[in-house]
Amino acid sequence: MKKPTILVLGAGYGGLMTVVNLQKKLGVDDAEVILVNKNDYHYESTWLHEASAGTLRPDQVRYDIKDVIKSDRVKFVKATVENIDVNSKKVATTAGDLTYDYLVIALGFEGETFGIEGLDKYAFSIANVNAARQIRDHIHYQFSTWSLEEERDDSRLTIVVGGAGFTGIEFLGELANRIPELCAEYDVPREKVRVICVEASPMVLPGFDPELVDYAKAQLQSKGVEFSIGTPVVQATPEGVKIKTGEEEFDFIKAGTVVWAAGVRGNSLIETSGIESNRARVRVEKDLRAPNFNDVFIVGDCSFMINEEANRPYPPTAQIAMQQGEVAAENIIALMNGRETKTFVPDIKGTVCSLGDEDAVGVVYGKKLTGKKASFMKKVIDNRALLMVGGPSLVLKKGKFNLL
Amino acid sequence: MKKPTILVLGAGYGGLMTVVNLQKKLGVDDAEVILVNKNDYHYESTWLHEASAGTLRPDQVRYDIKDVIKSDRVKFVKATVENIDVNSKKVATTAGDLTYDYLVIALGFEGETFGIEGLDKYAFSIANVNAARQIRDHIHYQFSTWSLEEERDDSRLTIVVGGAGFTGIEFLGELANRIPELCAEYDVPREKVRVICVEASPMVLPGFDPELVDYAKAQLQSKGVEFSIGTPVVQATPEGVKIKTGEEEFDFIKAGTVVWAAGVRGNSLIETSGIESNRARVRVEKDLRAPNFNDVFIVGDCSFMINEEANRPYPPTAQIAMQQGEVAAENIIALMNGRETKTFVPDIKGTVCSLGDEDAVGVVYGKKLTGKKASFMKKVIDNRALLMVGGPSLVLKKGKFNLL
Repeated sequence: MKKPTILVLGAGYGGLMTVVNLQKKLGVDDAEVILVNKNDYHYESTWLHEASAGTLRPDQVRYDIKDVIKSDRVKFVKATVENIDVNSKKVATTAGDLTYDYLVIALGFEGETFGIEGLDKYAFSIANVNAARQIRDHIHYQFSTWSLEEERDDSRLTIVVGGAGFTGIEFLGELANRIPELCAEYDVPREKVRVICVEASPMVLPGFDPELVDYAKAQLQSKGVEFSIGTPVVQATPEGVKIKTGEEEFDFIKAGTVVWAAGVRGNSLIETSGIESNRARVRVEKDLRAPNFNDVFIVGDCSFMINEEANRPYPPTAQIAMQQGEVAAENIIALMNGRETKTFVPDIKGTVCSLGDEDAVGVVYGKKLTGKKASFMKKVIDNRALLMVGGPSLVLKKGKFNLL
Repeated sequence: MKKPTILVLGAGYGGLMTVVNLQKKLGVDDAEVILVNKNDYHYESTWLHEASAGTLRPDQVRYDIKDVIKSDRVKFVKATVENIDVNSKKVATTAGDLTYDYLVIALGFEGETFGIEGLDKYAFSIANVNAARQIRDHIHYQFSTWSLEEERDDSRLTIVVGGAGFTGIEFLGELANRIPELCAEYDVPREKVRVICVEASPMVLPGFDPELVDYAKAQLQSKGVEFSIGTPVVQATPEGVKIKTGEEEFDFIKAGTVVWAAGVRGNSLIETSGIESNRARVRVEKDLRAPNFNDVFIVGDCSFMINEEANRPYPPTAQIAMQQGEVAAENIIALMNGRETKTFVPDIKGTVCSLGDEDAVGVVYGKKLTGKKASFMKKVIDNRALLMVGGPSLVLKKGKFNLL
């Protein structure tokens, strides 16, 4: 009998956890496991705000895929997925077409600009390692250009962060710590630099405990971050962003750097795959399979699940993606052996939002934390992700040890 | 009797050596010494090619002026000189007008673009610390942008260096070493990067021994540097440079970065000062005074002297500027005491052109050197400049100790 082919698309948290669990639980002859990824490295997408602000080097937020897969059990294909067709069971990639018996789609998120004019052209997005590196280098270039100019344009030193959600706030936390360093490096007076968070909705960190939100906002403000809340960005231009401040009132913020960190969607390849989706996210069955396609699993940010207790969707987090990867692997093995699949139930251990290296807010095992304790837990969570995928050796290599 | 005022403009090699020698040889009550400089730091202009390529951090190529002057003997004014009028003995600065009994003009060089269209707008110049920082950051930004682009424009990774003189070659040497590091950091294949030196004249490193020139060129070529010699740049555009390759033949080199390192002139303030000059350089008297102005000394790159033995001008080097500073200080003291001034005679100990961290070519005490030996001597020379201005403590703080 021919070995079944398990094709995993994407080596983010969800895809890599699927593969790592498959290679742990399957014998060499049980299946052919193929992992397709654009890069030959995995990156910690939850650490990209640090690489973007320049507080972590890009090579610190990624590791080689070959370090965590066993080459006798998993075939790695470095290629970009170009099309998915679940009806004909065909995946087109830059390295040729692939077919499968079981497919795991783990292609992650894309930035969502909600059709706002100019954002796709004039705003940066904390989308991947390359994008993070560009944001960092762009900010450096603005600082060095300001220092050199005869007639100085102070708006070069203004950074607008669109979005006061998780990513926006974490990025602001890193920036707030990084700015004084940049000012020293580039001979820029601190008061010339503005960091402004613009948010459409009336609140910061929606879904977080109000006490923690107040703490986070106050801490960032004490480091000079300004907030413009309830003022949607309506247009981005090469000079900055136009925001709506009232019924018919608008304001323009001149800024040398605009980073859009508001809203994500699933990978757009989903939308042409034949699977029903909304903003490229698939409302998966209880066992993580795509509706109507019994051989297709969706894990991570391309999947969508309702938390019935809270009556709202689960957020797209690394924590859930990793748990999904584990269950997807188990369920594929169950199907291979004619057993029933199991229901995926997220186990939310906690959520911590970093506010820079030594500060954070969050809830862990039901307990509210702020400051150094929260920051400590954040690093424990970051290291745990490494441990689950690559074991202790990966933690030693890429872990965060500045715990206190 | 009123103390005479000695006003020194510029804290480069020449100006700082003047001040350091004045404070050594004058008593507290002998004169009021005022040093005016744009920045509160001195920078090693002979190390700027390293900061530009990113092989030295900008803070490694500069030190605080207050670290080398004695505040009870020298008054430091952080200001930009705006106008010099030697007829009315008035110097206008951003910190107000100053007058003097003795003036030392040590304002250094400016880039010379020879009227070539677009160079002032579209080419970078290794002019000062701020400019070096911008060149480095610009190259980084080009690399990160290339990595991120869907449709990659390889010309982003092309760096044109205009000029195969001393500065051009030293910058190429640093770049050649830095490119492989950048490729690793930015996931760029080495073969995508082009570094091209474009030179109008038919030779590389004019004035150097032909054997050393051949060595330098071959070493740089072995690291991937291309040379286009005898092909003047006739125009710079946002896309690159147009070069003249024949009688009526032209070529266009598309390049994301153009650095102009061909030719320097004196500071343009000289041209409106009332002193006769050519390309803002003053042909000084034998005792370093300006012709017709007995109270004005010119040292460093704004001065011009003929080497009568060789029947050509002395090159504008740090070595000569420092020696001039020493003699200018002596001659001012001589004038104060009614003694005769002495004639300045350059003592050329050697000239070494760096080819990156571990390689160089040069002549030291009449001996031709290449490779590690020459590189060693280059660092000895660099450290000696620190020693002469700031003593052993400055060498310890800013010196180059990776000698072999």
